[in-house]
Amino acid sequence: MAIKKLGKQTVKFKNPPYIIATSATVGPKEGEGPLKDYFDTILEDDLYGENSWELAESKMLRESVKKAIYKADKNITDMEYMLSGDLLNQLMSTSFAARDLGIPFFGLYGACSTMTESLSLGAMLIDGGYADYLVAVTSSHFSSAERQYRFPLEHGNQRPLTSQWTVTGSGAAILSAYGQGPKITYVTTGKVIDLGIKDPNNMGAAMAPAAVDTIVTHFKDTGFRPEHYDLIVTGDLGAIGKEITEEMVFDRGYNIAKVYNDCGLLIFDNQAQDTHAGGSGCGCSASVFCGYIYKEMIKKNLNRVLLVSTGALLSTTSSQQGQSIPGIAHAVTITNM
Amino acid sequence: MAIKKLGKQTVKFKNPPYIIATSATVGPKEGEGPLKDYFDTILEDDLYGENSWELAESKMLRESVKKAIYKADKNITDMEYMLSGDLLNQLMSTSFAARDLGIPFFGLYGACSTMTESLSLGAMLIDGGYADYLVAVTSSHFSSAERQYRFPLEHGNQRPLTSQWTVTGSGAAILSAYGQGPKITYVTTGKVIDLGIKDPNNMGAAMAPAAVDTIVTHFKDTGFRPEHYDLIVTGDLGAIGKEITEEMVFDRGYNIAKVYNDCGLLIFDNQAQDTHAGGSGCGCSASVFCGYIYKEMIKKNLNRVLLVSTGALLSTTSSQQGQSIPGIAHAVTITNM
Repeated sequence: MAIKKLGKQTVKFKNPPYIIATSATVGPKEGEGPLKDYFDTILEDDLYGENSWELAESKMLRESVKKAIYKADKNITDMEYMLSGDLLNQLMSTSFAARDLGIPFFGLYGACSTMTESLSLGAMLIDGGYADYLVAVTSSHFSSAERQYRFPLEHGNQRPLTSQWTVTGSGAAILSAYGQGPKITYVTTGKVIDLGIKDPNNMGAAMAPAAVDTIVTHFKDTGFRPEHYDLIVTGDLGAIGKEITEEMVFDRGYNIAKVYNDCGLLIFDNQAQDTHAGGSGCGCSASVFCGYIYKEMIKKNLNRVLLVSTGALLSTTSSQQGQSIPGIAHAVTITNM
Repeated sequence: MAIKKLGKQTVKFKNPPYIIATSATVGPKEGEGPLKDYFDTILEDDLYGENSWELAESKMLRESVKKAIYKADKNITDMEYMLSGDLLNQLMSTSFAARDLGIPFFGLYGACSTMTESLSLGAMLIDGGYADYLVAVTSSHFSSAERQYRFPLEHGNQRPLTSQWTVTGSGAAILSAYGQGPKITYVTTGKVIDLGIKDPNNMGAAMAPAAVDTIVTHFKDTGFRPEHYDLIVTGDLGAIGKEITEEMVFDRGYNIAKVYNDCGLLIFDNQAQDTHAGGSGCGCSASVFCGYIYKEMIKKNLNRVLLVSTGALLSTTSSQQGQSIPGIAHAVTITNM
């Protein structure tokens, strides 16, 4: 019997890894939002001195890793693994950053759920005795994502009110067997859930059932109730997905309303910044966690957090072929002990 | 100190997981090649009864998983994790298969290195005490890959002699803490290596330096010499990449010639089947390992194998932006004990 397994989908760590440092980099628009004081680096322009948005995203990811390592008082060569992914085809921003950094590398793809995928696997690698230090990181970029998934920006198309705004941002976390900081104590790995949503401009609704499934499974596997947490925070469901999630979790017997929020709603002022249903993209929960949440945990304003990054596993090909949008969500418990 | 770590990039398992069953599915062309008697399923046509090549690839992956689980005498619900990826944007074939199978899912992207990425992380999850049973799987499909990366097939363009033929195939392996079969004993995780090759029709040359780096690091970390192995087999370097690898490894002090081969050369008769430099794609090393190598290990004709799947981290965007092609390779030691 797997000795660290709780219930069907949850792991309880025997030697919970520390998150000894984080770093969050965001674009200019994110740097004008409500969380502006929590980010480590705010870009003045979203090309970041590069020749393309894709290279700018890659630089953002690379620099976030370097800054997190610096804040952990370690060197790049101390990092035994880099677990990372992004939204771009073939993980372009991640692959090129991994080339420059030279850290042994596992490429991940979980769409916007990638931050908790990297934290989950990273925590298992530390607790399992395979590494003392590693970095979990991800990124997204508004302009590179729009070019790839929707329309070239030059097209100037109108965005429906259900649509979300891809966050230009990257978050990197250093996990360690030693040191101090909040610990990763539980991981609940999600299944791919698809209730048949086909509208690529309504990702929140497509991802919500996966978030619900993972949150409810987490409660069942661990025996925790919502009151166990100071904050339960989904990745980037936005206004519509958050409302659906809260109701569906309630229907399954858990009232999370008092402690529940969504990174896609925290990062922008949707009214003032015209971001419609909220933020999205791998960089959304990554920069909100590595910026706002981690720093509030260090200050002990938050002590028990369930981070549930959520991903829509949509490709332009599957969309053109009339397929619906599968969603996935992974949950990670982070605890001040 | 990470207790299971050897040298810089290698893990030595304390409780090496068993590979209790595998299944390999291939397309019609692969089914006419030299390894035809080793595959579990050979498709009669590469649409496999589906409406698109992408859906056919997804079905191939899903059916490989189901057959491997059946051969292991287990049920789908016994599988605690599915670790999988493919070449398609947003892992379309994997995501849709994971949706149908309903197994907790970690999406991976390592281009053609994905089979050893999934075996590496899978072995860590079993040895670490997080699961008793899981499935590691990947796929590729000639027609879906050509459409995405190069030209629509209808274009009928001529292929240069350095080009490789993407394998239509999928391989699935069931890893377990119990049972019998060959064991995964060591894992050497690769770095992204890029020596500046820019020709997307010469992937072998682009990936070879990564294979060399991982193989030489494996020898240094473990203290093994090439003679330790009955077979050292790279993923899909093809004729050109294999020759480069053999020479570069020799220059670094190890003569692997007597035990070295490449999955991309094993799967096709390049002359008779007009596949130029050999096979490629995630499904290449996956189907050759899960078909030929695993079955030869069960028969004890092979007892110590170093499987080194190799990936070219090329995207059409990075290629159009004039970037070179980064490569990566992960090595896994599989031993009859």
